Amino acid sequence: MKIAIYGEAGSYTEQAAYNAFAGMVPVHCKYISEVFKAVGKRADLGIVPIENSIEGVVTATYDNLIGLRLNIMQEITMRIDHCLISNPGTKLPEVKRVYSHPQALGQCREYLERHGLGSIPYYDTAGSVMMLKETGMPDAAAIASPYAARLYHMKILARSISTNKKNYTRFLVVSKTAAARGEKTSVVFAARPIAGALFNALGAFASNGIDLTFIQSRPVVGHPWSYNFYVDFKGDKGDPKVVMALSELRKRAKFVKVLGSYKKSEV
Amino acid sequence: MKIAIYGEAGSYTEQAAYNAFAGMVPVHCKYISEVFKAVGKRADLGIVPIENSIEGVVTATYDNLIGLRLNIMQEITMRIDHCLISNPGTKLPEVKRVYSHPQALGQCREYLERHGLGSIPYYDTAGSVMMLKETGMPDAAAIASPYAARLYHMKILARSISTNKKNYTRFLVVSKTAAARGEKTSVVFAARPIAGALFNALGAFASNGIDLTFIQSRPVVGHPWSYNFYVDFKGDKGDPKVVMALSELRKRAKFVKVLGSYKKSEV
Repeated sequence: MKIAIYGEAGSYTEQAAYNAFAGMVPVHCKYISEVFKAVGKRADLGIVPIENSIEGVVTATYDNLIGLRLNIMQEITMRIDHCLISNPGTKLPEVKRVYSHPQALGQCREYLERHGLGSIPYYDTAGSVMMLKETGMPDAAAIASPYAARLYHMKILARSISTNKKNYTRFLVVSKTAAARGEKTSVVFAARPIAGALFNALGAFASNGIDLTFIQSRPVVGHPWSYNFYVDFKGDKGDPKVVMALSELRKRAKFVKVLGSYKKSEV
Repeated sequence: MKIAIYGEAGSYTEQAAYNAFAGMVPVHCKYISEVFKAVGKRADLGIVPIENSIEGVVTATYDNLIGLRLNIMQEITMRIDHCLISNPGTKLPEVKRVYSHPQALGQCREYLERHGLGSIPYYDTAGSVMMLKETGMPDAAAIASPYAARLYHMKILARSISTNKKNYTRFLVVSKTAAARGEKTSVVFAARPIAGALFNALGAFASNGIDLTFIQSRPVVGHPWSYNFYVDFKGDKGDPKVVMALSELRKRAKFVKVLGSYKKSEV
């Protein structure tokens, strides 16, 4: 099975993909949008990060979910263990700057500030290790997984440098087809531009006894300070009370899109 | 007046600061957290970006708002007009990669993808122009304001390259002291870990006729999949119905912190 994944060989998304689909063939993508475009063409499925327990949501994933005709099929949660990685000859005091994905830099912000290390955002964690190797930079390091360090034969200068040990990332598996049934559903909607609209819209869930496990607002491009709301809740989109809630939400909201019902991850 | 601002000379935050406080002396900070730390020490006030109408919230700003004893004093909204900027000798077809702040790269994602330009995140928009100038890189460009191009004597290769012309950024002015009275209030709270808790908490506003203009969730570090909720609404924290709503919210939420009541910007 070919799976479009975000990042280079050794990226966290690739690891999550191997964990869930042993024997898969990765199709590496530099952009989140490239993953979404590859599904159904160069790849059977796509895997993208959606949220980290320290740094929050991956906005590019949200902005792609709304536009495309793909379904969320599955959720994968993986523990993230960040290392500081360098070329083999580099010693810790020689490191002047650290490259990594902005999410990873954010997750290790306290370590970097404590050691006075300047951070330089890069498009991917594993990609930053690859770049250090290719350029041979002696005075820089990257933040990525121990697996990426091994894969590129690079040196681990420090382990477990996240601000908090409880560092998890949720990934979504997206496909052209929907999962049969799920225990969790994701929906995006836009509230009408009237007073109390968001509270009113959320009432569609509350009045049907559905508890939201997540809510996230994202701007509507071209309409400053208007938002789409992404919500997650327990249950399948075919469950009677979910059907009732969505039908009420459709009356109260400007638009509603069900992104998928899928298997919840265990963490 | 000394104002701690995010970014180098020529950054959008610096422009917003000059617009609101003519004659101010900027204290340039590389990190959002540095701005917050400088207020009351190296600077009288601080100015940070909080939200862009295309790319959404600036998460580092939110994560600093909760921890520190500063108040939001004022909101400033500024139109953002991004340019593609290079060294004077560079021609557009020679550009291989584009440096800028991840927010700016995100706001110009469609232009970059249409022209097949690789994007490399950098800590600041104006900082990326400064870096191009210092290194003399001939095959790269930066995304920043026309003002930054002029300031560093660099060439504008393309103008108005945002995905949408309606590109605005909101900035917050933070200080050790609170504004006298405001027309807008920001609050952060954590819902209790019980079913229906968020809806219940938001009911404190709805039942007092207060309409939320904004809601944003941010993860609680160390407690995966727990969230703090940031909300904005019209009114001053001393208005009777706001006092009532906050008192009800305190009963329903785990904690409540008022970040400030302040003057709303016009856009």
